Amino acid sequence: MDIVFLLFQRLTALDAIGPYEVLSRIPDAEVRLVAPEPGLQRDESGTLGIQADQSIDEVGRADVLVVPGGFGTRALMRDERVLDWVRQIDAGSRYTTSVCTGALVLGAAGLLDGLPATTHWLSRDLLAELGARPVPERVVEQGKIITAAGVSSGIDMALVLADRLAGAEMAKAIQLSIEYDPQPPFDSGSPEKADAETVELVSEAASAARRPA
Amino acid sequence: MDIVFLLFQRLTALDAIGPYEVLSRIPDAEVRLVAPEPGLQRDESGTLGIQADQSIDEVGRADVLVVPGGFGTRALMRDERVLDWVRQIDAGSRYTTSVCTGALVLGAAGLLDGLPATTHWLSRDLLAELGARPVPERVVEQGKIITAAGVSSGIDMALVLADRLAGAEMAKAIQLSIEYDPQPPFDSGSPEKADAETVELVSEAASAARRPA
Repeated sequence: MDIVFLLFQRLTALDAIGPYEVLSRIPDAEVRLVAPEPGLQRDESGTLGIQADQSIDEVGRADVLVVPGGFGTRALMRDERVLDWVRQIDAGSRYTTSVCTGALVLGAAGLLDGLPATTHWLSRDLLAELGARPVPERVVEQGKIITAAGVSSGIDMALVLADRLAGAEMAKAIQLSIEYDPQPPFDSGSPEKADAETVELVSEAASAARRPA
Repeated sequence: MDIVFLLFQRLTALDAIGPYEVLSRIPDAEVRLVAPEPGLQRDESGTLGIQADQSIDEVGRADVLVVPGGFGTRALMRDERVLDWVRQIDAGSRYTTSVCTGALVLGAAGLLDGLPATTHWLSRDLLAELGARPVPERVVEQGKIITAAGVSSGIDMALVLADRLAGAEMAKAIQLSIEYDPQPPFDSGSPEKADAETVELVSEAASAARRPA
């Protein structure tokens, strides 16, 4: 089973690595990490580098596509070469998936027109502008398209996907192997649960980061 | 604030990237990823590569040390150069932390003697052999040493650490920014919660993987 991750400059590392850690444990998974320009892909802070061993041009099909998010999605949304590739892979995939603002790339490629979908809570408006119907859910399955909310939600999405691909027993075994028994010290993981002050703090920081440098 | 991640060949990617995604969002964090031999560090499957930009020899102190796990820890546990470096960093750190079998490296360095600590559930016996007192908890704080259980627990550990380093408001803001509102589709994330069959499946797969190739 061919599982392809689309990496790119200015990605959010956990968006990719959360699902990677789950999906790569499916026994017959053949995982490839690809990018528009192969080589090291730095995260939003520029600190962490994840290697893309192949160019998107070398990969013509996949059973599963995972598109992570990050500020770098803004450039991908205007890159017709990337959008054409996403449409090509989707045409032959069993599942086409996104984490966080990776949904904006699926939206820009026209794959979410009129569909319920999710993304990072700060990007719901932008997702709507791309034709999707944003819903405040953590994982949204819509036929073969599965979108996940912000960053860490990719782990939950990937466990749902592991169930669909390899069955519940395998998904549960993977959950145990990564000891995914979450115990966050606070209950502040969604805008519906966090204090208003926390929501404002994060919203302001995000606005500042998006201002052109 | 200097936060240093010790990377190495055959690491478990999520062990490192979970805490990275949390700790790198602390406003004054200066994160460095180091390794015994800098360059691309491949994960246990050999598929994913994460870049270590510096050698451990270039880093003499850190406020926070994070040691992730993975099969590659077995080699580190016998590498006196690495263990000396871990002891040196610990001597000047505010917090010395591990995720999953990263605890075995702290144990081999003599930092856990007689202390309660946690690790991946499959490695509790090995941790005991190294002088620690393994406890089946997800995050164990023992003075400035914080150990986390398997793989995904590093996210919870890092949120606890963010609270200690930057306060609860910042930790909650980071939790919201990575939308960490876990909703796993199964309740199979610890050996105490999983079915006996699931525990056996994962234990057997781990034993097989540890056999010399």
